[in-house]
Amino acid sequence: MSVRRAIWGEKFEAIEQSLSEVDADLYGYIRDFAYEEVLAREGLDLKTRELLAITSLIALGSPKELATHLEGALLNGASEREIRETIIQSALFVGFPNALGAMKMFHALLRKRSEA
Amino acid sequence: MSVRRAIWGEKFEAIEQSLSEVDADLYGYIRDFAYEEVLAREGLDLKTRELLAITSLIALGSPKELATHLEGALLNGASEREIRETIIQSALFVGFPNALGAMKMFHALLRKRSEA
Amino acid sequence: MSVRRAIWGEKFEAIEQSLSEVDADLYGYIRDFAYEEVLAREGLDLKTRELLAITSLIALGSPKELATHLEGALLNGASEREIRETIIQSALFVGFPNALGAMKMFHALLRKRSEA
Amino acid sequence: MSVRRAIWGEKFEAIEQSLSEVDADLYGYIRDFAYEEVLAREGLDLKTRELLAITSLIALGSPKELATHLEGALLNGASEREIRETIIQSALFVGFPNALGAMKMFHALLRKRSEA
Amino acid sequence: MSVRRAIWGEKFEAIEQSLSEVDADLYGYIRDFAYEEVLAREGLDLKTRELLAITSLIALGSPKELATHLEGALLNGASEREIRETIIQSALFVGFPNALGAMKMFHALLRKRSEA
Amino acid sequence: MSVRRAIWGEKFEAIEQSLSEVDADLYGYIRDFAYEEVLAREGLDLKTRELLAITSLIALGSPKELATHLEGALLNGASEREIRETIIQSALFVGFPNALGAMKMFHALLRKRSEA
Repeated sequence: MSVRRAIWGEKFEAIEQSLSEVDADLYGYIRDFAYEEVLAREGLDLKTRELLAITSLIALGSPKELATHLEGALLNGASEREIRETIIQSALFVGFPNALGAMKMFHALLRKRSEA
Repeated sequence: MSVRRAIWGEKFEAIEQSLSEVDADLYGYIRDFAYEEVLAREGLDLKTRELLAITSLIALGSPKELATHLEGALLNGASEREIRETIIQSALFVGFPNALGAMKMFHALLRKRSEA
Repeated sequence: MSVRRAIWGEKFEAIEQSLSEVDADLYGYIRDFAYEEVLAREGLDLKTRELLAITSLIALGSPKELATHLEGALLNGASEREIRETIIQSALFVGFPNALGAMKMFHALLRKRSEA
Repeated sequence: MSVRRAIWGEKFEAIEQSLSEVDADLYGYIRDFAYEEVLAREGLDLKTRELLAITSLIALGSPKELATHLEGALLNGASEREIRETIIQSALFVGFPNALGAMKMFHALLRKRSEA
Repeated sequence: MSVRRAIWGEKFEAIEQSLSEVDADLYGYIRDFAYEEVLAREGLDLKTRELLAITSLIALGSPKELATHLEGALLNGASEREIRETIIQSALFVGFPNALGAMKMFHALLRKRSEA
Repeated sequence: MSVRRAIWGEKFEAIEQSLSEVDADLYGYIRDFAYEEVLAREGLDLKTRELLAITSLIALGSPKELATHLEGALLNGASEREIRETIIQSALFVGFPNALGAMKMFHALLRKRSEA
């Protein structure tokens, strides 16, 4: 199974089509280098890799990609508690505002999933 | 065992004394809030927490604290391979320059340990 | 009076309830450590602390918390002029785009208050 | 022709009025120092300066000013291809999330222009 | 008295000569725009401006200019305590690593001054 | 000619050996993806790409890789004036401290070259 399928889940086709339209070359690098080469490396399981991705994205100020990897973490075996711990810990290193922004996004995601 | 002892290892006394001299109040917060409250939380093991700490510090541009947590990760069960994977993955999110800076620091640390 | 009451003003109950729902533990740290311990320290008055908070948040790229502290600064004795000076000065250190983003947020806040 | 006219194009009056209302002094610095002094310097043509501006803004996390300079680059002779290359290259230095966010903004801008 | 003299103190000539050699035009902007125009504005006293400068520089990761403004704050009436509070508060917004780096720099500066 | 040879010049062998020792896999990505794939793309000449690289690195706070690309820009046809303009312009977007740090590094590099 491709790493994109593992992380994007049932949104695979929608994300793939959307990114291809935005820029085929940039999407090609994201697909072939970021997902299917680097994130697909052995040495760390995908759950840990998604917690690390969440941490990097919180440091960047919680851009839109954060939602993708919060869902990707849940899909790959991270518990709600583990994701909350990842976000809380990040406050120590990059401050409360970015951590709080990420937790608000995770809270909204969980609410949406429970309503679905 | 305190989380500081687990992460700082045999440098515990030296780091504690140095930080106390720099600013007793700031060190108090680092000790009581950062280490013995947040990093001591359940829900994630200390090895994973150290990989997350490394990721946050790479995003900040690899300050001096990175060396502390690279050693802390090794002390708490992370393999050399897992730490290298953590650093390599961060290049996707915050770019090659910060990831390369972190890898150079880890390389120097490993060399120093093998010479000791 | 608690520091949160001083900074959040009449939005105290709404902010407290919202943050508690997002994550009770993270809110606990924001309440007990960030507001009622660190921001409550002596040695700097609350007006100066709010101008420093605004400056930190501009450097982060003006996240949502900036609105809270722009209002908090006004509530604790900062004049409109002092806040504008704080934002303008930040352009020297972190560039015009982040400073301009903050000034737009402050302009919208002032307009909303004058219409209320 | 003023540099602002060259970069802002037919939005000149709208942007000037909007920024003047936000803060006359900050706008004065943006007008007299940023645009008509620094960006107006010789030694680099305006097309190259706009590609550099786009690069700086991607590093900041793609704030609103990015849209202004994406349009400014097109107005001053940069091809769609050159702007896409500028965005793709930035992924190497500041990571894929910020580069992708910028490319999405450029894609939306191109679509809007083709519909106009 | 020029703002540069107020902030740089007895290092005025050394800093001016050093920056002029590095790049006369960039120094011209730092002198005429940053110091003698923006930092010289009314509406905030120079002590407060220096505490804001320290806060901005901590967010940037404590570059060399931080030492200049730590000394500038002391020269313009900030107490050691006020500067320590400024640094401690910044940990809330940009994390402990950058705050600790700044405090180490301030500690080294105070020690050097007491030995002089 | 490889892009690495074009940018690294006579330091090619030294840089290649050093990076290979630090981490063979990370260097593999830097070599095959960053340099020989992305930086080797058509659509922008190498001189412009190096000015963009310098701009990205200034935003990151002037890490060690900045020296490599300052030299790479000179090697690929950028004039001293064009590099100085690139650095000066970055002050508008990411502030004076990072721009000044970069200019000091460029000044030291020019002095070293003139002495050689």
